Amino acid sequence: MSVSLQDIQQAAQRIKPYAHRTPVMTNESLNRRVGAQVFMKCENLQKVGAFKFRGASNAVWSLTDEGAARGVVTHSSGNHAQALALAAKMRGIPAYIVMPDNAPQVKKNAVAGYGGQITFCEPTLEARESTMEKIRQGTGATVVHPYDDERVIAGQGTAALELLEDIPNLDAIIAPVGGGGLLGGTSIAATEMKKGIRVIAAEPEMADDAQRSLKAGGIVPSLNPKTVADGLLTSLGQLTFPIIQERVEQIVTVSEAGIIESMKFVWERAKIVIEPSAATVIAVLWEKKVNLSGLNIGVILSGGNVDLERLPWQK
Amino acid sequence: MSVSLQDIQQAAQRIKPYAHRTPVMTNESLNRRVGAQVFMKCENLQKVGAFKFRGASNAVWSLTDEGAARGVVTHSSGNHAQALALAAKMRGIPAYIVMPDNAPQVKKNAVAGYGGQITFCEPTLEARESTMEKIRQGTGATVVHPYDDERVIAGQGTAALELLEDIPNLDAIIAPVGGGGLLGGTSIAATEMKKGIRVIAAEPEMADDAQRSLKAGGIVPSLNPKTVADGLLTSLGQLTFPIIQERVEQIVTVSEAGIIESMKFVWERAKIVIEPSAATVIAVLWEKKVNLSGLNIGVILSGGNVDLERLPWQK
Repeated sequence: MSVSLQDIQQAAQRIKPYAHRTPVMTNESLNRRVGAQVFMKCENLQKVGAFKFRGASNAVWSLTDEGAARGVVTHSSGNHAQALALAAKMRGIPAYIVMPDNAPQVKKNAVAGYGGQITFCEPTLEARESTMEKIRQGTGATVVHPYDDERVIAGQGTAALELLEDIPNLDAIIAPVGGGGLLGGTSIAATEMKKGIRVIAAEPEMADDAQRSLKAGGIVPSLNPKTVADGLLTSLGQLTFPIIQERVEQIVTVSEAGIIESMKFVWERAKIVIEPSAATVIAVLWEKKVNLSGLNIGVILSGGNVDLERLPWQK
Repeated sequence: MSVSLQDIQQAAQRIKPYAHRTPVMTNESLNRRVGAQVFMKCENLQKVGAFKFRGASNAVWSLTDEGAARGVVTHSSGNHAQALALAAKMRGIPAYIVMPDNAPQVKKNAVAGYGGQITFCEPTLEARESTMEKIRQGTGATVVHPYDDERVIAGQGTAALELLEDIPNLDAIIAPVGGGGLLGGTSIAATEMKKGIRVIAAEPEMADDAQRSLKAGGIVPSLNPKTVADGLLTSLGQLTFPIIQERVEQIVTVSEAGIIESMKFVWERAKIVIEPSAATVIAVLWEKKVNLSGLNIGVILSGGNVDLERLPWQK
């Protein structure tokens, strides 16, 4: 069983009362600079500042009342943790979040601020998973994985669904790829809604495990990647890999400089705050490694959570 | 003769093909923080990144073909210069911009980028005005003052007009005050469209000449003010002062810290880039010097042009 367009349509109905229908923005300076018509789906304006809220709330609202009452659990120190905590809070159920004890204070505060019940553990994958498993057994909470979960993939696909509803004549759609939840959902929504649409993924050169996975025909794990796009560090999952293999035309890698320049350009010209991971989709156009000249391009700006004290273009 | 609601309505029709109808944004974190429902009219998303494009394009498109052909002229080193240059370019007529030779290179480039014909002069008001007058005599160009011009005031009023069309049940509206073009236009649109609406102005404590002018009953010039809100340094004009005297309930001054904190909060939570002058309207709510608790408040976010290399919250 995989995720269908119908699953994404149902997810859209399910999360409609809770998630924002984010705007699609255009910017003439950007269009001129990259030589294409760019339609930016602004998930930086989504609740918790990232598309992650879509998948998390679809997962939370997919549960039966009885299942939901036992809560949800995940291990994450990023946007998914905040998204799941807020989605659970909206349903009035507990969210148990396992975080490494060395996570930044600002992230701990954010999760706690949304009412998440944090359990700290050592900063190893093993400790995170065993701690989560202990909580699951103790509470009966449902595990919601950040990307390798069909409810999550379907939820993330609702951004592309809305984008294509608003702008039907897209020639291509670009989404960033980390674990592949957003890209997977995007690729299903896009290719099912519009025959022949090109689905392109954006990935940092410095964390190009998804591109290498496609070439190798199997998941190549991401080994200690270093990129400014800190939302894209994870490897593809068992569920997301085959979807991407089937539906994504190509994965384009972008340089760190391209990410940072694109990010700054969007802040300066479009006047919106986007995070480096979101800027990768602009960088694909900016660096012109693939010819999309003159086309109508939808891009998913995945999020806008940045530390305003430390911006990547400042030394 | 002053500016009427009809003038503003006509301006709205006139600039409709050229200016953006900017979105009205809301943010729940902000509402919670300030204890009111805040509706942000996003003029940072306007062309050239500021409301100034409304007044400039209304002035440009108010001219007869014959008058327009001779061009427009102004002296300004700020957003008005860029706005007038772009509006003139759209009509295909020359814009002569007088700038002090010590203006920042980035502003010179911006005006030139919109096709403005720049004449440099010494950085004194006298030199700017005499240079402008020489150009006017030589070319027959029409002078478009940044704020003390009825066409400009009417144009700036279109932001409030749109805001009240979108959100009719506002209890109050807050606009920043520098020369008073935006505040004047806003106050006319608001009070004519909605009886009893409260019009409040935001002004930096460090440049409180408008507040002092209202108290004194006459224009008190702004003497070498120093504030992070560099769009609000000018004094009220002969046309704008009486409008404000008649229609504005009060001018609330805000601290530098309040401006900077509000600005950063909007970037962090609403994910939009606003300039310090725009943040003053949020600072009025933030500092709670006037009781607006629980009300529906419209605020005009005047612009989003900032130097991303030097942000005011960074040392």
